[in-house]
Amino acid sequence: MDDPQKNRRVEIFDSTLRDGAQAEGIAFSVEDKLRIITALDRIGLHYIEAGNPGSNPKDMEFFRRAAALKLERARLVAFGSTRHKNLRPEEDKNLASLLASGVPAAAIFGKCWDLHVTQILNASLEENLRMIQESCAFLKQAGKEVIFDAEHFFDGYKRNPAYATAALSAAVEGGADCLTLCDTNGGCFPHEISAVVKKIRAAFPSIRVGIHCHNDTGCAAADSVEAVLAGAVQVQGTYLGFGERCGNANLSSIIPSLQLKLGYACIPEENLHLLTATALEVAEIANTSVKKNEPYVGRSAFAHKAGMHADGVLKCSQSFEHIDPEAVGNERRFLMSEMSGRTAVLRKIHRVAPDLDRDAPETFAIINELKRLEHLGYQFEGAEGSFELLVRRQLGLFHSSFQLVSYKVLDELPYDESHSSTATIKVRVGDKLQISAAEGDGPVNALDSALREALCVFYPCLHKVRLIDYKVRVMEPKDATAATVRVLITSTDGDEVWSTVGVSADVIEASWFALVDSIEYKLRAEQLPDKL
Amino acid sequence: MDDPQKNRRVEIFDSTLRDGAQAEGIAFSVEDKLRIITALDRIGLHYIEAGNPGSNPKDMEFFRRAAALKLERARLVAFGSTRHKNLRPEEDKNLASLLASGVPAAAIFGKCWDLHVTQILNASLEENLRMIQESCAFLKQAGKEVIFDAEHFFDGYKRNPAYATAALSAAVEGGADCLTLCDTNGGCFPHEISAVVKKIRAAFPSIRVGIHCHNDTGCAAADSVEAVLAGAVQVQGTYLGFGERCGNANLSSIIPSLQLKLGYACIPEENLHLLTATALEVAEIANTSVKKNEPYVGRSAFAHKAGMHADGVLKCSQSFEHIDPEAVGNERRFLMSEMSGRTAVLRKIHRVAPDLDRDAPETFAIINELKRLEHLGYQFEGAEGSFELLVRRQLGLFHSSFQLVSYKVLDELPYDESHSSTATIKVRVGDKLQISAAEGDGPVNALDSALREALCVFYPCLHKVRLIDYKVRVMEPKDATAATVRVLITSTDGDEVWSTVGVSADVIEASWFALVDSIEYKLRAEQLPDKL
Repeated sequence: MDDPQKNRRVEIFDSTLRDGAQAEGIAFSVEDKLRIITALDRIGLHYIEAGNPGSNPKDMEFFRRAAALKLERARLVAFGSTRHKNLRPEEDKNLASLLASGVPAAAIFGKCWDLHVTQILNASLEENLRMIQESCAFLKQAGKEVIFDAEHFFDGYKRNPAYATAALSAAVEGGADCLTLCDTNGGCFPHEISAVVKKIRAAFPSIRVGIHCHNDTGCAAADSVEAVLAGAVQVQGTYLGFGERCGNANLSSIIPSLQLKLGYACIPEENLHLLTATALEVAEIANTSVKKNEPYVGRSAFAHKAGMHADGVLKCSQSFEHIDPEAVGNERRFLMSEMSGRTAVLRKIHRVAPDLDRDAPETFAIINELKRLEHLGYQFEGAEGSFELLVRRQLGLFHSSFQLVSYKVLDELPYDESHSSTATIKVRVGDKLQISAAEGDGPVNALDSALREALCVFYPCLHKVRLIDYKVRVMEPKDATAATVRVLITSTDGDEVWSTVGVSADVIEASWFALVDSIEYKLRAEQLPDKL
Repeated sequence: MDDPQKNRRVEIFDSTLRDGAQAEGIAFSVEDKLRIITALDRIGLHYIEAGNPGSNPKDMEFFRRAAALKLERARLVAFGSTRHKNLRPEEDKNLASLLASGVPAAAIFGKCWDLHVTQILNASLEENLRMIQESCAFLKQAGKEVIFDAEHFFDGYKRNPAYATAALSAAVEGGADCLTLCDTNGGCFPHEISAVVKKIRAAFPSIRVGIHCHNDTGCAAADSVEAVLAGAVQVQGTYLGFGERCGNANLSSIIPSLQLKLGYACIPEENLHLLTATALEVAEIANTSVKKNEPYVGRSAFAHKAGMHADGVLKCSQSFEHIDPEAVGNERRFLMSEMSGRTAVLRKIHRVAPDLDRDAPETFAIINELKRLEHLGYQFEGAEGSFELLVRRQLGLFHSSFQLVSYKVLDELPYDESHSSTATIKVRVGDKLQISAAEGDGPVNALDSALREALCVFYPCLHKVRLIDYKVRVMEPKDATAATVRVLITSTDGDEVWSTVGVSADVIEASWFALVDSIEYKLRAEQLPDKL
């Protein structure tokens, strides 16, 4: 980019803990919030908006603990609104809570759309300007850095630019350090954002201008990037795009777009490779997962399925990749499908057997077995655990940890008590037989419990293993209830996470195959138990 | 918008079945594909790219069936590439397969980035231009509409604008009907897309220009909208943004952005309210779900959590909503106090009971029952059969055709002969009891067979009913094998097709509920059999 603004600094302002907490299904404990602050500070964001102390008195204890964290770079911010229309600033509890929070910066929102002032706030247009000016001044006099969040700025500016601009002037008169223009309803497009930011930059040349976008048209990332190109120097968003309705601007996309592709400085260069791991960590804390196809940080973000694309990337990575995946700590993946070739498969084999040659007979054997299983309906692209076992079996590196003698699962309606299913299972480990029985919520749950109970006798480490994901895919739905089903199971022992697959016309049997692989994967490096 | 281009027509080109199928975890059966074509045609898209007949010989049968569909508006498109560098067009099997597919339009991609021509294709720059020109000409002479997908156009144009433009000229010389500029690697921003589209529009004023974006920087929707503002008249994407890596431009966002907010005509006005239901249907067929915070069509897209926002919306909806949710068939939700969309439900009730009043007590009863079932995990998008039964039950228009006394299903491994499952069932019809038993490929198949055998004694018309689709969705995958599952069944009697749903933690029980609804739906107009 031959951009005159190259290397200009852009402040990143994260609101995961405040605007992000407005998302449906998101709720943070105090511990969660402290962990997220630590994770975001580690990558070097400038501002972390920690919450709205005036709206929730419980937040005060959290703010005290947050203010005590030793942060590398981030300034904590408390969020609130301009003073109540009938109170002086020093009488307003909301403003008082911003001071009491003990953090160095305050973000306060004020109304900039005349419709909101008269119809929602029921204040006069003049009074609203005084509220903005006096609230900023009150916080500045108390020594805070003041970021003025110009609520509904773009919608207001479209209808009444003079009044929207007057609201900004009031904030500047009050001493605000930064004017952050908000597309609160998330309905704006980049060309609109860009044009307005340019005008405001020209009207207020000596103050920082920021941008705060929502994703209601799917344009929040683009809006933010184009606002920076138009002169904004602060980007507000949430790290994974959490937020009310369709979410806020996603900082995990915007940071690498600005820094790797457009030459702006957002976070320390050496921290860019932490972006993907931080996404996983924030998602984990929020009890959700990173969308597979999330730009830059998603698991599929650099996953190639089309054979032609996979071949192209291997010849020349920029041919089908807009950045180097490792720059953001992500990785290139080649998905195994009927469409992809031997080179892609070999790359995956090499994780298990690094020295295996492209033309070795074992390589052909593995690929033939892969094709045979794919033809039956197996799919290994989300089942790396089963893939590793397949490779080990072909290379003679696998010993089974147990054998099934038999299982029986009974499911009935109506049922007594609370469980519809009962499973009995008989397994052999070495020369010992073990029989167990268990009830469950459904046949697979009962079978899973019975199997674990039988095997934990021999392998106590299985106590730590639990299933964290279970998926069922009917492969030829037109065969209806006789169709082949594919079951994918994801397991963890607290340290590692692995996925396995099973296929059968019988959903219980398919689940059984995936369960067996899950356990064999965990035990692949174990010896047969001593006591046998 | 005071836009001079207001009311200009924009063609929508969906590639869910082709580029969408490149997404990790997405695989469509022939039935899936036919259902998606039908769903997309219903909302009035212009083009549906159905697949790549040259890459997969199995696709030929599908194309024959697709070409036989009676579509309202959509033209089907077959996708392929320009001819092989060493073959004449009439020798190229890929081009031949486009003709053999029997659909009226072909989209062929050609290389526009010089690096790709020399390093990936290993062809000379001149030969590539001939390949483009001759391939377009070959298809035009065979009577096809030809859309030229200018692969890597923006990346190519940045490095070598003269060559990228020459590639377009070759397509025009060959007779292409439309030049679709592709941001294949998905790395471009709106200002870049907009500038290039304007230049190409100026250079080729008499041919349609289209846009095809990928979402690798999270900007695909914005890129597409800004391309239209710059003069593009065709938008390629996938209905829910499915696609390789980070996905393609999401048409379910772009259509309402263009049509409701920017004044373009994309689909018939009266179909806009189908956008949300179509999203659910396409997701269901793809065995995935619509992201909650998906713009316009996600369940949270108009969900207000902040009390202040909820209050504001109640005072004046535009205060916190950029469009009316009902315009796209979605609904406003208040997360704190559940008071969700009666109008949307009423629209569906009217299909069964056209005269039911908005404020009738029956309407409230239906909505309450619906909420109760949705809370349990039911979803009636895609299960209209069960929805009709629900409405009939609430209106007293339902009599059950049989009662279950009990069933038992046994599943075992190893198993004798060919079947792993056995079911016994006892049902009551009138005052007669009937017991049947059956084996099957899996527990649900056995139960289904036993139930039919028992009921056909009383209702011979059930002999004609068969299940043509069976889907299983695990709803809280992190609960693993104890998670609630939703089963969707589609049935036919040769004339009508209907879908039903069941939910339980036990996959057999969930299937049972859906099976019962399937049969009750078929028998809803039948009297109890005479012989009782």
